[in-house]
Amino acid sequence: MSFEPQKIRSFTEQVFLAIGCSETDAKQAADVLISADLSGVDSHGVARLAGYVRLYDHGRLNPKPEVKIVHETPSTATIDGDKGLGLVVAPKAMEICIEKAEKVGSGWVSVQNSNHFGIAGYHSSLALQKDMIGWAMTNAAPLVVPTFSKEKLLGTNPISVAIPAKEQPAFLADFASTAVAYGKMEILQRQGKPAPLGWVQDAEGNPTTNNNAVKEGGGLLPLGGDRESGSHKGYGLGAIVDIFSGVLSGANFGPWVPPFATAGFHGVAAEQVGKGTGHFLGAMRIDGFRPADEFKENMDIWINRFRSAPAVDGEKVQIPGDQERNFKAERLKSGLPLNDKVVESLEELSKRFGIGF
Amino acid sequence: MSFEPQKIRSFTEQVFLAIGCSETDAKQAADVLISADLSGVDSHGVARLAGYVRLYDHGRLNPKPEVKIVHETPSTATIDGDKGLGLVVAPKAMEICIEKAEKVGSGWVSVQNSNHFGIAGYHSSLALQKDMIGWAMTNAAPLVVPTFSKEKLLGTNPISVAIPAKEQPAFLADFASTAVAYGKMEILQRQGKPAPLGWVQDAEGNPTTNNNAVKEGGGLLPLGGDRESGSHKGYGLGAIVDIFSGVLSGANFGPWVPPFATAGFHGVAAEQVGKGTGHFLGAMRIDGFRPADEFKENMDIWINRFRSAPAVDGEKVQIPGDQERNFKAERLKSGLPLNDKVVESLEELSKRFGIGF
Repeated sequence: MSFEPQKIRSFTEQVFLAIGCSETDAKQAADVLISADLSGVDSHGVARLAGYVRLYDHGRLNPKPEVKIVHETPSTATIDGDKGLGLVVAPKAMEICIEKAEKVGSGWVSVQNSNHFGIAGYHSSLALQKDMIGWAMTNAAPLVVPTFSKEKLLGTNPISVAIPAKEQPAFLADFASTAVAYGKMEILQRQGKPAPLGWVQDAEGNPTTNNNAVKEGGGLLPLGGDRESGSHKGYGLGAIVDIFSGVLSGANFGPWVPPFATAGFHGVAAEQVGKGTGHFLGAMRIDGFRPADEFKENMDIWINRFRSAPAVDGEKVQIPGDQERNFKAERLKSGLPLNDKVVESLEELSKRFGIGF
Repeated sequence: MSFEPQKIRSFTEQVFLAIGCSETDAKQAADVLISADLSGVDSHGVARLAGYVRLYDHGRLNPKPEVKIVHETPSTATIDGDKGLGLVVAPKAMEICIEKAEKVGSGWVSVQNSNHFGIAGYHSSLALQKDMIGWAMTNAAPLVVPTFSKEKLLGTNPISVAIPAKEQPAFLADFASTAVAYGKMEILQRQGKPAPLGWVQDAEGNPTTNNNAVKEGGGLLPLGGDRESGSHKGYGLGAIVDIFSGVLSGANFGPWVPPFATAGFHGVAAEQVGKGTGHFLGAMRIDGFRPADEFKENMDIWINRFRSAPAVDGEKVQIPGDQERNFKAERLKSGLPLNDKVVESLEELSKRFGIGF
């Protein structure tokens, strides 16, 4: 089924209003989710709306957070998200990054006491309009095994970097530090298909094609798959994201990061080592390094050079961000293809709050 | 053959002196190389000493560089390495990062007009003694194919992040953005062994086990190996390193990055889009985010928790930096195991400059 983005956006805003968010925050939160759906990241769009409401129902979400700076220098800060929606807290953190960058060249904010922030690329991209490079990362509940570990200790911990160009669209990298995001396993489960080797391991740490392995004591593998092909690098990357988001901010980290919503199969850790989920965001002024126009012209050269590389048969060399842009162009015309389970969850919210869509 | 680290260090210093480096710079450059050998990164130690001399012979290396800041804000700068040894220019850049971080919380320096800087982890680690987190990355000559590309457009572009702990040793991630470094292919070539699938592709972009594929028109694969297992993420990471090191600084980038030394098989690009090789370094004061002691105590918790995870049979869960530390402890006792080819290259330098080792 296909839905008009504008209708889903308006419905999403109203649901956030219904749980007590301010109008500004409801608009902001909806914008992050719809942006994910438009970009083809279906797992992080309105598919999660019911989950955010579940967080609220369980008292884990403050719909009217007062985000506070708890520690700062001219170029750095830690903020307390006051149990707010990450969808709202992260853009506020990015605002602080941008203000600091305007004054001293760069701004870096670690965030404690937040919740799931949606797609990282939304937040990093906020820097682009200011001729800045944006960074965004977040930790997440443990689904991933470090190299040689039988235990899940890291989230899929994504990292995003957004870099402006001149005539070309921005370079926008946004990726989990695992071979694949968990959403890919859920697709295989629905289709009854095996997982390719290198995506997951079983409870004993053996390679497996069992698409249900993560639920059965196994774990997602770090980017690289196995030690021989560099899984310690994916593990290192996920660990950096965890430490910047969790340890630096005073949020939870590693196996203690709370799950998105309590319906998850991994449960909430009884013990906590910090407050909520953590993020890390940054903004760097291009002209803190060289004149912005010069840089952006060179980015056009970079992008054109990579795009025009000879490709293997039937493919082309893409620039990070191209896939999301292609999805967006198509879905603005054809609508959002929400699957039955997602539509069902929206219908439940519709009934509960008396909001049509 | 095994050699006393102190002897090799002294020899290396004298070779750098012989090509005209100042005493301070010669000591600094030797320290980076010996540190690589001690840490088990044999490909980046004195095995490259003859290469640095070759750079000098070809007029590509200025032994007495005057490193200049060409652009800056309180937290950012671009410096011109004046064609100096990256081994010397990068620590100078890191000094500037640290000074800026002391004043405004963080410091970020992009470097143009430099040369190969050795192991990234040496430079990021310079921040540790100041209770700061260190970053180091560098671009390098093209050996790596972006996802679906038949052409090599990126270097192995490493990234390193060093994070202090309290009782535990530092977290030190230092890894190429490829499945494996090129040095691993050279080992297979010497041994006459095939490459595992996922390391390289052939000239047509097909998976191959040919250990000579990179020289025969193929390329190293980004971390992740193929699209299905996330090679676009390794490509994205390598691209970020390239853009930060090359485009932001005004150095060369992508396929235009000059090779380490002209003896390389990839040749020097006739066309240049910037000056020399580029690096990017950063330092962030821990107490720009939270009290340093609190942070370091939490890092100890992080490290202990990960170390104590149940491991697959016969292995253990390591922390980034453990492998290098284990090598160092062993080699400080047993010496540096230099291979015949490396010893030969040192003997040639010994003859040429009249320096014994």
